[in-house]
Amino acid sequence: MSINAPRGTQDLLPGTTEKWQFVEQQLTDLCRRYHYKEIRTPIFEHTELFQRGVGDSTDIVQKEMYTFEDRGGRSITLRPEGTASVVRSYVQNKVYGLPNQPTKYFYIGPMFRYERPQQGRQRQFVQFGIEALGSDDPAVDAEVLALAMSSYQELGLKSLKLVLNSLGDLESREAHREALVKHFDPHREELCEDCQVRLDQNPLRVLDCKKDREHPAMETAPSILEYLNDYSKDYFEKVKEYLDVMGIEYEIDPNLVRGLDYYNHTAFEIMSEAEGFGAITTLSGGGRYTGLVQEVGGPETSGIGFAMSIERLLMALEAEGVDLPVDEKLDCYIVALGDEAEKAAVRLTYQLRKAGVQVDKDYLGKKMKAQFKAADRLGAKYVLVLGEQELENNVINVKNMDSGDQQEIQLEDVIQHMSSILTGGK
Amino acid sequence: MSINAPRGTQDLLPGTTEKWQFVEQQLTDLCRRYHYKEIRTPIFEHTELFQRGVGDSTDIVQKEMYTFEDRGGRSITLRPEGTASVVRSYVQNKVYGLPNQPTKYFYIGPMFRYERPQQGRQRQFVQFGIEALGSDDPAVDAEVLALAMSSYQELGLKSLKLVLNSLGDLESREAHREALVKHFDPHREELCEDCQVRLDQNPLRVLDCKKDREHPAMETAPSILEYLNDYSKDYFEKVKEYLDVMGIEYEIDPNLVRGLDYYNHTAFEIMSEAEGFGAITTLSGGGRYTGLVQEVGGPETSGIGFAMSIERLLMALEAEGVDLPVDEKLDCYIVALGDEAEKAAVRLTYQLRKAGVQVDKDYLGKKMKAQFKAADRLGAKYVLVLGEQELENNVINVKNMDSGDQQEIQLEDVIQHMSSILTGGK
Repeated sequence: MSINAPRGTQDLLPGTTEKWQFVEQQLTDLCRRYHYKEIRTPIFEHTELFQRGVGDSTDIVQKEMYTFEDRGGRSITLRPEGTASVVRSYVQNKVYGLPNQPTKYFYIGPMFRYERPQQGRQRQFVQFGIEALGSDDPAVDAEVLALAMSSYQELGLKSLKLVLNSLGDLESREAHREALVKHFDPHREELCEDCQVRLDQNPLRVLDCKKDREHPAMETAPSILEYLNDYSKDYFEKVKEYLDVMGIEYEIDPNLVRGLDYYNHTAFEIMSEAEGFGAITTLSGGGRYTGLVQEVGGPETSGIGFAMSIERLLMALEAEGVDLPVDEKLDCYIVALGDEAEKAAVRLTYQLRKAGVQVDKDYLGKKMKAQFKAADRLGAKYVLVLGEQELENNVINVKNMDSGDQQEIQLEDVIQHMSSILTGGK
Repeated sequence: MSINAPRGTQDLLPGTTEKWQFVEQQLTDLCRRYHYKEIRTPIFEHTELFQRGVGDSTDIVQKEMYTFEDRGGRSITLRPEGTASVVRSYVQNKVYGLPNQPTKYFYIGPMFRYERPQQGRQRQFVQFGIEALGSDDPAVDAEVLALAMSSYQELGLKSLKLVLNSLGDLESREAHREALVKHFDPHREELCEDCQVRLDQNPLRVLDCKKDREHPAMETAPSILEYLNDYSKDYFEKVKEYLDVMGIEYEIDPNLVRGLDYYNHTAFEIMSEAEGFGAITTLSGGGRYTGLVQEVGGPETSGIGFAMSIERLLMALEAEGVDLPVDEKLDCYIVALGDEAEKAAVRLTYQLRKAGVQVDKDYLGKKMKAQFKAADRLGAKYVLVLGEQELENNVINVKNMDSGDQQEIQLEDVIQHMSSILTGGK
């Protein structure tokens, strides 16, 4: 009887993993240039962290978490997102007390949500994200936006849209909240059940409702932008000004909201406008928050972050027809015949690999012709032939599979020869 | 109230993660040269996979797994090791039917075992491992051994010992098993309780017992090597011969055994002999197996693999005093004063990063002196000063922090200038 991978998870196999390696390498280098450093937090956390940090009222916490008891009877949850864990680590390790602030992190790793699996939505998926903690300079917001956009642009995506909003500070949000309740209350009975609850608990999220999107009261709803106080208005202006000097384009969408009380000021999403990307247009989102560090036990600290799914990034690259520069060809294949040649081939393979050359050989006792076929299938750039004749003469036949050129090289020179062709002699 | 990471898990923070990145990059490159390709399997699997693939009778399955029910009522387990998942994927994706064989995989990722946390043993730890499936050529065994040793040697470890044994094929193991029972049965009552059970179920594991290590019957126990049939003897000879031609040293230890019936022929461990590495001397182990692919639903296939903990690798590097070449210095820090200079600094930071240069700046509204201090703390190689005076003259002051040299550069040339100094103009 065969056993399959759990529903909503997938195996990444050779041919695909090279693309992941490339993307992760690029993102790591991007973060290096932006001086965001990697943090790795555990795959699971105490459940309480997400109840507090993601929010008890969210769909994630209520319906989508992989929660279980460990053998010690503690409630443990596979992380559904990255921010809560990063903030927990920042507090636990008292990083807020270190001299270099703000603290700028990035992370890449698997996250887990028990949802109905569909195109672009797996139960295990990989997020790349960043968090900048400890500064409320609008230049940090602009930096996060620039890094987020660059993470797509540097990989070759073009049809991107940056959508921006400000949620203001607490005072602004409270004024707006009041106006929203006043505006929607007369229509209470016409809204969906969820929105009737939202209207009391978190009226901002009514603007986000997919069911009530067409209700006429939506269009005339008061915009947060009209309720920003001077500080919030100025903050938003500065963020936009910095984006302008960097030449990063954006659209303002006053209906771009975030459900949780933590969020303030800058909120954003990056969308793909690529044809053929289908219904999934949002690639990633992020925003500024405050109160989260306190919730987890640290001092009042402002932060801003963003997170994206690598799976969706790869889908967007495919939709735009971007080929990643991944070389799947093999450098070298050694064809050997006979027991003595086999031994020499084992040694040579080992030495070439040590010298930086990628090499493979036959391990199925194939005849010479079948070995050549295998070399061909693997896209070998060079085939090195070692028969009894060659061994006797202490030479090896090097064939360039592109040009068809052949060359006899002294056995003692072949490491140097191949390594200088293939690695520039590094 | 503060929330900590779960017991037995840890946060990897900047300063440490750079070492992990370096090690993973090196291992990935090593595997590229050996033509082992990356596979990524899910973090959790159906529990049954490990019951079958790791073995119901093992400590791992009986005591150490993180097992739970998902929201659909299925029993799910966080993977305690990598081989079972790789084999499951090989079968599920029918990889055995593809033309290029053997199939050679590597993986790097977190594994989970509920054990008492101690030095070098965490509940979440990271394994690097390889599996070669579909060939029983002893040259593959030698290749796996070479890769395993190289993974330590290329990072700079020197005090290593490769310990080798052969468990033979099924026929050899059965003859040996009979001899073991005959040998130990007269001493049954003197052995520990576990060994009394082992004597009936799996007498090979008696040799592995830590409690009965000093029992006089241990020393005189029949060695597997005396019971190898001709095929197994020849197989082992060939593995050793290949190691010899590669110049890889090893010791034979006939008591090096593996508990499960799957294992046959080559078994090995790599030990650290570094002083100060303490009681933990085993860095990694591996061996050849057969029957595992069948157990998971595939055709009879021979495989060989090895796995190591990255945590222990890093401990061994520390014990030997090996410094990884990790550069934690910052390329460039931009010091700016005044609103206009700040705007120019945001733009310049963005452009330099785009051009490949690592840059940071102040985000806390610091005075000039404090900005210089920050640059110093971050180990900045260059400080770029942009005051109102410079802005007016359209120049920027570039200070080499190593030599103390200063240079005025035209603002429009600075990207090109810094990029050619720091990245060779790439």
